[in-house]
Amino acid sequence: STRGRIPWKMMLQILKIVIITVQLVSFGLSNEMMVTFKEENLIAFKHFFLKNYKDSNKHYALYTKHEVHDHILYTIRRYLQLQNLTIGNQALEMIDGLATPLSLCQQLYRHARVVPSNETFEIDPHVETECVSVYPLSPITTDSLENSLNLTLDFQRLLAVNIYLKIKAINIQTVRHQELPDCYDFSINIMFDNRAHSGQIKISLSSGVQINVCKDWNISGSNSHFALIVVFDCLIICFCLLSLILCTRSVHTGFLLQTEYRRFMSSQHSKSVSWSERLEFINGWYILIIISDALTIAGSILKICIQSKELTSYDVCSILLGTATMLVWIGVMRYLSFFQKYYILILTLKAALPNVIRFSICAVMIYLSYCFCGWIVLGPHHENFRTFSRVAGCLFSMINGDEIYSTFTKLREYSTLVWLFSRLYVYSFIPVFTYMVLSVFIALITDTYETIRHYQKHGAPLSELQA
Amino acid sequence: STRGRIPWKMMLQILKIVIITVQLVSFGLSNEMMVTFKEENLIAFKHFFLKNYKDSNKHYALYTKHEVHDHILYTIRRYLQLQNLTIGNQALEMIDGLATPLSLCQQLYRHARVVPSNETFEIDPHVETECVSVYPLSPITTDSLENSLNLTLDFQRLLAVNIYLKIKAINIQTVRHQELPDCYDFSINIMFDNRAHSGQIKISLSSGVQINVCKDWNISGSNSHFALIVVFDCLIICFCLLSLILCTRSVHTGFLLQTEYRRFMSSQHSKSVSWSERLEFINGWYILIIISDALTIAGSILKICIQSKELTSYDVCSILLGTATMLVWIGVMRYLSFFQKYYILILTLKAALPNVIRFSICAVMIYLSYCFCGWIVLGPHHENFRTFSRVAGCLFSMINGDEIYSTFTKLREYSTLVWLFSRLYVYSFIPVFTYMVLSVFIALITDTYETIRHYQKHGAPLSELQA
Amino acid sequence: STRGRIPWKMMLQILKIVIITVQLVSFGLSNEMMVTFKEENLIAFKHFFLKNYKDSNKHYALYTKHEVHDHILYTIRRYLQLQNLTIGNQALEMIDGLATPLSLCQQLYRHARVVPSNETFEIDPHVETECVSVYPLSPITTDSLENSLNLTLDFQRLLAVNIYLKIKAINIQTVRHQELPDCYDFSINIMFDNRAHSGQIKISLSSGVQINVCKDWNISGSNSHFALIVVFDCLIICFCLLSLILCTRSVHTGFLLQTEYRRFMSSQHSKSVSWSERLEFINGWYILIIISDALTIAGSILKICIQSKELTSYDVCSILLGTATMLVWIGVMRYLSFFQKYYILILTLKAALPNVIRFSICAVMIYLSYCFCGWIVLGPHHENFRTFSRVAGCLFSMINGDEIYSTFTKLREYSTLVWLFSRLYVYSFIPVFTYMVLSVFIALITDTYETIRHYQKHGAPLSELQA
Amino acid sequence: STRGRIPWKMMLQILKIVIITVQLVSFGLSNEMMVTFKEENLIAFKHFFLKNYKDSNKHYALYTKHEVHDHILYTIRRYLQLQNLTIGNQALEMIDGLATPLSLCQQLYRHARVVPSNETFEIDPHVETECVSVYPLSPITTDSLENSLNLTLDFQRLLAVNIYLKIKAINIQTVRHQELPDCYDFSINIMFDNRAHSGQIKISLSSGVQINVCKDWNISGSNSHFALIVVFDCLIICFCLLSLILCTRSVHTGFLLQTEYRRFMSSQHSKSVSWSERLEFINGWYILIIISDALTIAGSILKICIQSKELTSYDVCSILLGTATMLVWIGVMRYLSFFQKYYILILTLKAALPNVIRFSICAVMIYLSYCFCGWIVLGPHHENFRTFSRVAGCLFSMINGDEIYSTFTKLREYSTLVWLFSRLYVYSFIPVFTYMVLSVFIALITDTYETIRHYQKHGAPLSELQA
Repeated sequence: STRGRIPWKMMLQILKIVIITVQLVSFGLSNEMMVTFKEENLIAFKHFFLKNYKDSNKHYALYTKHEVHDHILYTIRRYLQLQNLTIGNQALEMIDGLATPLSLCQQLYRHARVVPSNETFEIDPHVETECVSVYPLSPITTDSLENSLNLTLDFQRLLAVNIYLKIKAINIQTVRHQELPDCYDFSINIMFDNRAHSGQIKISLSSGVQINVCKDWNISGSNSHFALIVVFDCLIICFCLLSLILCTRSVHTGFLLQTEYRRFMSSQHSKSVSWSERLEFINGWYILIIISDALTIAGSILKICIQSKELTSYDVCSILLGTATMLVWIGVMRYLSFFQKYYILILTLKAALPNVIRFSICAVMIYLSYCFCGWIVLGPHHENFRTFSRVAGCLFSMINGDEIYSTFTKLREYSTLVWLFSRLYVYSFIPVFTYMVLSVFIALITDTYETIRHYQKHGAPLSELQA
Repeated sequence: STRGRIPWKMMLQILKIVIITVQLVSFGLSNEMMVTFKEENLIAFKHFFLKNYKDSNKHYALYTKHEVHDHILYTIRRYLQLQNLTIGNQALEMIDGLATPLSLCQQLYRHARVVPSNETFEIDPHVETECVSVYPLSPITTDSLENSLNLTLDFQRLLAVNIYLKIKAINIQTVRHQELPDCYDFSINIMFDNRAHSGQIKISLSSGVQINVCKDWNISGSNSHFALIVVFDCLIICFCLLSLILCTRSVHTGFLLQTEYRRFMSSQHSKSVSWSERLEFINGWYILIIISDALTIAGSILKICIQSKELTSYDVCSILLGTATMLVWIGVMRYLSFFQKYYILILTLKAALPNVIRFSICAVMIYLSYCFCGWIVLGPHHENFRTFSRVAGCLFSMINGDEIYSTFTKLREYSTLVWLFSRLYVYSFIPVFTYMVLSVFIALITDTYETIRHYQKHGAPLSELQA
Repeated sequence: STRGRIPWKMMLQILKIVIITVQLVSFGLSNEMMVTFKEENLIAFKHFFLKNYKDSNKHYALYTKHEVHDHILYTIRRYLQLQNLTIGNQALEMIDGLATPLSLCQQLYRHARVVPSNETFEIDPHVETECVSVYPLSPITTDSLENSLNLTLDFQRLLAVNIYLKIKAINIQTVRHQELPDCYDFSINIMFDNRAHSGQIKISLSSGVQINVCKDWNISGSNSHFALIVVFDCLIICFCLLSLILCTRSVHTGFLLQTEYRRFMSSQHSKSVSWSERLEFINGWYILIIISDALTIAGSILKICIQSKELTSYDVCSILLGTATMLVWIGVMRYLSFFQKYYILILTLKAALPNVIRFSICAVMIYLSYCFCGWIVLGPHHENFRTFSRVAGCLFSMINGDEIYSTFTKLREYSTLVWLFSRLYVYSFIPVFTYMVLSVFIALITDTYETIRHYQKHGAPLSELQA
Repeated sequence: STRGRIPWKMMLQILKIVIITVQLVSFGLSNEMMVTFKEENLIAFKHFFLKNYKDSNKHYALYTKHEVHDHILYTIRRYLQLQNLTIGNQALEMIDGLATPLSLCQQLYRHARVVPSNETFEIDPHVETECVSVYPLSPITTDSLENSLNLTLDFQRLLAVNIYLKIKAINIQTVRHQELPDCYDFSINIMFDNRAHSGQIKISLSSGVQINVCKDWNISGSNSHFALIVVFDCLIICFCLLSLILCTRSVHTGFLLQTEYRRFMSSQHSKSVSWSERLEFINGWYILIIISDALTIAGSILKICIQSKELTSYDVCSILLGTATMLVWIGVMRYLSFFQKYYILILTLKAALPNVIRFSICAVMIYLSYCFCGWIVLGPHHENFRTFSRVAGCLFSMINGDEIYSTFTKLREYSTLVWLFSRLYVYSFIPVFTYMVLSVFIALITDTYETIRHYQKHGAPLSELQA
């Protein structure tokens, strides 16, 4: 009887793969257009507001008092002239016909008198913020800007100078892809960072963005296919609900069967049924499909909200839809299980899983011990070991044969001791981890494969349940 | 009787390898000279026509209105002065004694009124093109250029400014390699791209090229070996035709034998003959040689056409000849099959093939699922995941131990969620794919190798046909 | 009876892991703040004192006499104006109200008359040093600096010009992390290096640093948690002493048992006990824990000294603590030994160890032979082979599949002979070492794994002792 | 009796390793000093003579006529002022009190009239060279240089402008290492390369060098250890001669024994002795030592000649000594052969050798076929495939997991066809070669290892000779 039901379900699943992938691709393309616009604007702002900015310049920083004044004034002047200079659809935010001002905020210690030559200092570490507003429409000629602004910076107390701007833009290129242009509100923050008081002020420009439906628009001869997309999303939700219900039913049936069997075993043979035997009643593939369906439904609902501009959590939505699609694709392999030879990969991985997990616990222990040690000892002297996450990434890359030579050469040769330690560290880590731990891991997989092959040829010992 | 024929055929094949390789190398060298000339001209054009162009500058873009005007005028001025400045054999195209004009074309929306500060816009997305021609011989002094051109750009409507040039050049360096110099027509397009309206106008210079035989020439003491090359190509075509005929005959003989055997089996033993048994009658090596010969013949004919300047499809020709040469070289291994010990690689690969294919289907499924998921989630935040093709390439590199550390570090740290996902993605992909899937694959190959070794030592079970 | 004691010890060890890791992280964060401040100051000094300095410029060097004068004067002028220009908390060192002078020292040969055009030279290789002091407070206007300094450089005799500065700074940012700001004494040395007399003077800026407790300070509303940290460190020392004592006792017990057994064997069976049997009485894990405890205690004492500013050997301390933490983490695996299946990695590695060591001796021999040969032949022509340590690193990377293509392409094509040798070198090294030596190594590990698996399934042969 | 002789010989060999390595290191250090001086001078020349030269600038080229004139004049002016500007011990060559002139040579076609606009050209490809000499001492003021030089360049005929200079330098830094300073004659060639006539003139500076003993010198308090080095070299030659004689004798003894055995077999058993049995009489290790000794002797003699400045073939000498040292180090493993367990690596490699060679023939065939195909098809579109040698290097790197991602991304996306081909090429090459061919290779090695292990445990079948 199971025979008859399968092709029907299988066709549902295959159709699901197709439409989910189509949905994913359409969402991806729309997402990309939005991200590209945001990013290009960010680059344009950097080139527009920052003096002498170059894309390649990773260490964009200032070193003298004069330069700091100069850069701040440059940014303000550029802001005042924005409308005349910019190429893009960018404009100042207007509230009641007045352009919003630029805010120039200084973060200062409440009090600081630092005299390094005497090795004395008085400090009150409470942080205060002082802001000045510069109105684009006030009658300041850019030449007299410096006088009227009267900018004085007390570098000893200064923690940071923040310049806050608000700029609006419209992404009209979406018109060519039959999508409705959106309005973007960029909140730009240009930060002159002096928190370290190390003689170096780093400049960074960051930008938050809010995306809205524009207030008023008129597109000649447009036919936005927005409604179509929503209908398609709803269709997907229906499909997945159907698939979800079918799979849940199957899992439920399996569960009932298991209860039945347990009662039978305890009453007839007065044996308790082990967990591994119980799990055999539940089909792992169904669980996979149920999870994937749930994710798709959640993702699709979120997508509808995003496309009607009620939410902007693109990232969450893409993670939900991406993971769902991944599981759906992996789920296809289920239908290969009817052809035993195709199925050896899955069987091997399944059989090896318990050992893999046990093994991984040991391996992760050694890995973490190396991570901690490397972070603490090499962190101050080596770029790749600066943060714990970078150490983990670097060691992981080294296991797989990447970034090894760079790890040797990037070390600033501070002291012989550290240099020696770093050699010992790398020369011991790779043999221990790659040649030994990883080899044992692969031997474990190979061993499992051979066992499975042996069973396929000569028949496997049956579990009590199957018997 | 087969014995007697083999060395004769083998010598034909070995001779074929030699002459095909010679042909390939000669074509390659001539091809390279052409490509290098095209490329060096392209670089020269970029340095010549683009203001402040630098080779290292990947992001060559403009950010203010003034700069855009400035760069466009610079390009036009350079064009007008081309003859006085250029070092190379480059000149403007002349038609009836008049130099062809430079075309300055603006791509514009038919109508666009975008007011970001009010969040309103009116747009007619139909694209119009307006062109102006600048004649090099018209009495414009370069100083008054700006006035006479009267260039006004409506940046709100503007999609792109395209400057079209036509430049002719002669590649006379081929004289030194005894080849006839060709005439090149470069159609240059300098594009100021504002389609995104993001405050950034990207400049790109692309160049199409048409290669002709020059109209009139005179080379003192030249002896072009053109005829020689054509004769050589014809010789190769003959050789390959001969080899093609011989191999086709052998395949045909095999086919007849198979029909005979099938009839015998069905009449005597009333058994049908399976496909795998039928295929044993057809020698795979002959098929390989037939394909390689067909490709060589097609490639050689194309090469003759190219060298007589009737066609310019260098790429198609090089793919045909390249693939043919590859197959011919692989075909040599056939003659190693007479020495069984040399042959173990081929035997192993052949025996493993069916399992490899079955296995690959599963592996590709997992691979694709990761690709989709990575593209959609990480695409907007990571350079390596921008397009589907790049994701595929990046994951493939990671399986083989390349680009792992870069994949960790290139991620712009947008949000914690995406950051976490990216770690999970990489840390799960490599163990699953490299350590587990790939290990099973290698175990599969190793297993096959051991089986073959076992058969070589102890004798293989014979198929019914061999028995 | 052993049963009862174990959980108690295990809990001690697990608690130890937690607190040692906490200590490590806290030390790491504090260490990082110090290193970052040092480094940012160094960068600031470079930008401040060196003319036209750029971060990306690896080869910062001068080539004409005029430039050298110019750069030296620039540095001096900057020093005189330091107080007016610098952003950071940096000041000249004051001794008795007088700023310490800048020292400009020339290293010269006692005598050198080199006439390359005649191929003659007279030289007295004894090196002399001549110094001039420039006082910041002396009434030198920066314009007349060149006259008053009267700087003459005899480039033939000149080995190096060294400029020595002393600059003081206070790292006040630690206030925000509840730590007491320290006073830093930077001893800067700007070196114009002409030792090679090759027409190129390389400029380098290095900086030594001494960290002191500041003389006088006043922090409003501060509560430095210094005492807390010391208490925590003492707690760790106590913990480790306890663990040390317990483990030493266990080792001692094992030793006594072994002596007993040896006496028993020699008296009853008149057999001598082999070393490997003797070692079975000593639990390797205890040795590991003892070493780790000793390192932790040493590291913690050092840490207390550093935090009370009596010592500054951060590197030694971080190596001690780092190694200790690593061993503690690895030591955890001991408790997995009670679950046999988890334990297979450890068992395999332990069983493979003797063969691994024997094997490594051979492999290292081949490796060293390649290193020597590569260093001597390719060293002058290839960046990666410049020093012995780099050769070792490069070959090690190549074994693991990194830096191979770069090794091919970085070779400056000096002579055909060297080019050919380099190809032969790389094309032979990787197959010999990666494909053959490393494969045998992995086969050795795999073989051991399979033996262990076999024993686990079918039982291992018992040693005499166990019997 | 062999027993007694061994330790004596072994000590000789171990001593030889030590002194050969010492010799190698001393030669390497001296070699490095020379190479570094040459290289730093080359860099200094580039910065000195080339206008706007930057180290990072890989594409140093000119694009307009004016620039070419400008750069040539700059170089000449710099040459005339060399003595006033240079920092190093560099001077013009003087012959009879007169400085040698700078030669400015134009390479020109005898005749060239190229009119790209008409697609016509007349060319006489015979190349002529016209030279002008500029004397540093002639009364040319640098301002009037342009007039007096009267430089006219016919860019249509021009193939290259070569500027030849001669500069002398003395490497006096060797004084500090107790070596005698040498005199260097640099022959500099600055080439403005217009051979391609592509609108781009590439500038390159190359430098030949001749190293001589200086004519006259005087070093106060010097004690050059030159004689010591020669004595040491002679000692090594003696050692190696001794070792050579002893080993030759042993090989000879083996040969005699083999003759004897062959005679015995043919007379008693009337059997002929196979080649493999004959080879068992000849100890491979002795052959290795003989080769290494011969190389050392040749290298040492060459080294003596170099150090007495009679020869300058550093490269040959370093290859001889390097290879010799490598063989000596590998030869040490011979003495491990007395401990069977240490010896398993050597045994495995030796046993696997015949199969490895057979296998490699097949693998190299496939490899070459890929190389040819990649070179011809991708060469024009991809930097890594430009020359055959680069293709080979790139594919080799890809097998070992390097440069894979770059190979994907470096492709200029010319045409879809080539793009598709490149994907297919890489996606097929790595699975075929790395996963399949290389796996079979490693299976072959592993198989051999297991056989050897089996023999070690259960005893190997004896050959007739051993029996």
